[in-house]
Amino acid sequence: MANGTIKIGLIGLGTVGSGVYRLLTEKNADLSERVGARFEIKRVCVKNGAKKRDIKIPKELLSTDFNEIISDPEIDIVVESIGGTTDARKIFDGAIANGKHVVTANKALLAEHGYEIFKKAREKNVLIGFEASACAAIPIIKVLRESLLANDILFVNAIVNGTCNYILTRMAEDSMDFADALKLAQEKGFAEADPTLDIDGSDSAHKLVLLALTAFGAHITDKDILKEGITGITKRDIEYAKELGYTIKLLAILRNNCGRLEARVHPTLLPKDHMLADIRNEFNAIQVKGDACGSLMFSGKGAGMMPTASAMVSDIAEIAKKVARHAVRSESIKFDSAKPESRDDMETRHYLRFTVVDVPGVMAKISKALGDNGISIASIIQKERYGEGEVVPVVLTTHAASEKKIGTALRHIDGLDCVKAKTFRIRMIEA
Amino acid sequence: MANGTIKIGLIGLGTVGSGVYRLLTEKNADLSERVGARFEIKRVCVKNGAKKRDIKIPKELLSTDFNEIISDPEIDIVVESIGGTTDARKIFDGAIANGKHVVTANKALLAEHGYEIFKKAREKNVLIGFEASACAAIPIIKVLRESLLANDILFVNAIVNGTCNYILTRMAEDSMDFADALKLAQEKGFAEADPTLDIDGSDSAHKLVLLALTAFGAHITDKDILKEGITGITKRDIEYAKELGYTIKLLAILRNNCGRLEARVHPTLLPKDHMLADIRNEFNAIQVKGDACGSLMFSGKGAGMMPTASAMVSDIAEIAKKVARHAVRSESIKFDSAKPESRDDMETRHYLRFTVVDVPGVMAKISKALGDNGISIASIIQKERYGEGEVVPVVLTTHAASEKKIGTALRHIDGLDCVKAKTFRIRMIEA
Repeated sequence: MANGTIKIGLIGLGTVGSGVYRLLTEKNADLSERVGARFEIKRVCVKNGAKKRDIKIPKELLSTDFNEIISDPEIDIVVESIGGTTDARKIFDGAIANGKHVVTANKALLAEHGYEIFKKAREKNVLIGFEASACAAIPIIKVLRESLLANDILFVNAIVNGTCNYILTRMAEDSMDFADALKLAQEKGFAEADPTLDIDGSDSAHKLVLLALTAFGAHITDKDILKEGITGITKRDIEYAKELGYTIKLLAILRNNCGRLEARVHPTLLPKDHMLADIRNEFNAIQVKGDACGSLMFSGKGAGMMPTASAMVSDIAEIAKKVARHAVRSESIKFDSAKPESRDDMETRHYLRFTVVDVPGVMAKISKALGDNGISIASIIQKERYGEGEVVPVVLTTHAASEKKIGTALRHIDGLDCVKAKTFRIRMIEA
Repeated sequence: MANGTIKIGLIGLGTVGSGVYRLLTEKNADLSERVGARFEIKRVCVKNGAKKRDIKIPKELLSTDFNEIISDPEIDIVVESIGGTTDARKIFDGAIANGKHVVTANKALLAEHGYEIFKKAREKNVLIGFEASACAAIPIIKVLRESLLANDILFVNAIVNGTCNYILTRMAEDSMDFADALKLAQEKGFAEADPTLDIDGSDSAHKLVLLALTAFGAHITDKDILKEGITGITKRDIEYAKELGYTIKLLAILRNNCGRLEARVHPTLLPKDHMLADIRNEFNAIQVKGDACGSLMFSGKGAGMMPTASAMVSDIAEIAKKVARHAVRSESIKFDSAKPESRDDMETRHYLRFTVVDVPGVMAKISKALGDNGISIASIIQKERYGEGEVVPVVLTTHAASEKKIGTALRHIDGLDCVKAKTFRIRMIEA
């Protein structure tokens, strides 16, 4: 900080970077007053210096080399908004090494390299602001770290992917097929041209890594997460679920299981009066249960230019306050000893949809395979017969059983003559 | 702070005070590590030193004179949990004068004396933690002040009284009368023996004052708030509302109306797909719309021993961090120039239930009175006739009209011969 002014270097001027630039310039006076220090954007790094832009930026601020920002001794805070993991990692490493604080919305980078980045930041006593990386303007990172710090977190259930939630909402409310709902999401701008990372659960898994760090101080990686996407869900599953009193959502789940941390991303049957069941369309929501605070929920749009910029500017302001008051103390992440739970041992209730030939004795065989593995049945939907010998769906829900037991039972069932397709399963939660 | 230890004086050991004592002692090691300073409860002030208690407190900590705490030069943070406004005000004044930070859950005190208290705190550069005063563990104060500081807040719609929400939920879901639902709420411990402050909207109005300070930097008082309770609502109103596609909730509302701040507490018809419509039973929820973040919602239980203590301890920790880092800077409240909107000018849609004698021409008279005042009708429910001359309800909804116009029209209508009881009205919101 020079002369009571916090100097900011902005790297990347895409949608989010432009939003940050706008807020920092348009609201400069108000932000400066609230923080108690002036803000100045000292340099903006762009890919193409000649490109025409919607926002007006003084030419002398522009640079095409991010090294000019991370090596500038006057710059206090680097805002990384280029995305990706290669250059972004270089920016983090360089900025931290030079004692600069960094603010980002880059969940992929932090999910992959967060552990090393936070460790380095702690060694150099610099701060990493990453509120925007989880759910944009929904302030879940700050809430977990500050508002709930007197709590042991029992579980987190979160809808953190707007694309999937939009698709599932349209399937449920308009009886659309998955393919049609995906197409509509793409037309509406809620899904990318290549939607893989959203619909296969990867984006939710990235956010889950950040929530695990923040809520449990746990360092988990992709391989610790039980991950399943939403592509296998049919219109029919949604109807059956409804008939049973449930709604299907893609959830990211963390659960403290006697000191072992369960981390899962999968479509989930939720009771229809569950607080997450009413979260519709592209909205995100996070339910947190702490031992003192009870069950809380935070919801809103988890993406978008200005919501993301709003979160990044709150991080910038928070760091600026500490810089201005010479009170920087890196506590980015407290790594606890929470160990990831093994997938085999994770226990949930299951919704199972079997595709069977309608002949006498089918249910007996399925029930026996479940019973032999210690799995008990909670409810069954078996529609009127279509005619002996036809292929029909049979749906049932189980009481809680481990992944291992369910896996063994399904391998056996899927090998039966009367079973004509791989059994489809959706996990369930009650609380 | 002496020897790196933050010393705390706790005044009041009722439900909430006991919760704070429990969290601070049971989680002492973890809190100290996160904050980077040790915590010590130096003294606890109780009314009766000889009383038997559920929690064990070393005898030498106890005092029956709060002056021993507010005048102790070693104590950094005073936790006020005695409630009421007389002694509590003395504690605040004394503590602030002696340079001590104060943490409280006392909404009545802050609603009445907050403006003076925050001003004094600013002059003496001490911090006031009051997160628990609004909605217990729902961290709305921190979120508004820190996470959303880059936003101009457009409106706040909030369910902040669990008693009323429980009663309205039971009326809607179990077709209960108001009186029966209130009795049930009392049996369940969700309503006091004397429920007046809850059901007449006063408790919500107290919280609204705190939200106005925090979200808008506005200093409003009770007389600026349009306030109505839930006692007039009948089972039938809930049914009619449902028929029209609405749910009835007691809302506390703040709205920036071109620089004037509308502050209202009243039963409200919400579209049934509104994000607040699904908040059931004793739960609270706050919807905030900012110009950058869009619409966010925060929900949970807004009362109770441990949720309240959770919020107070997060305030204590926040202040402790600043004390430990010598970075105290009172910014408790930024008072902006937002002026309260006059009641007459507040505009909403209305639900009106008329009690009329069923004779020809009644609707014509009512419509004319509304039309003469520039109020247009949006929908009408007029059930099949009970027989000419009988007293029947007629329900209609209006388009947006000012309080003044509605008031004038209703005075005229209630004077008509065919109108047999004071017309009952419920305001509506759409967004």
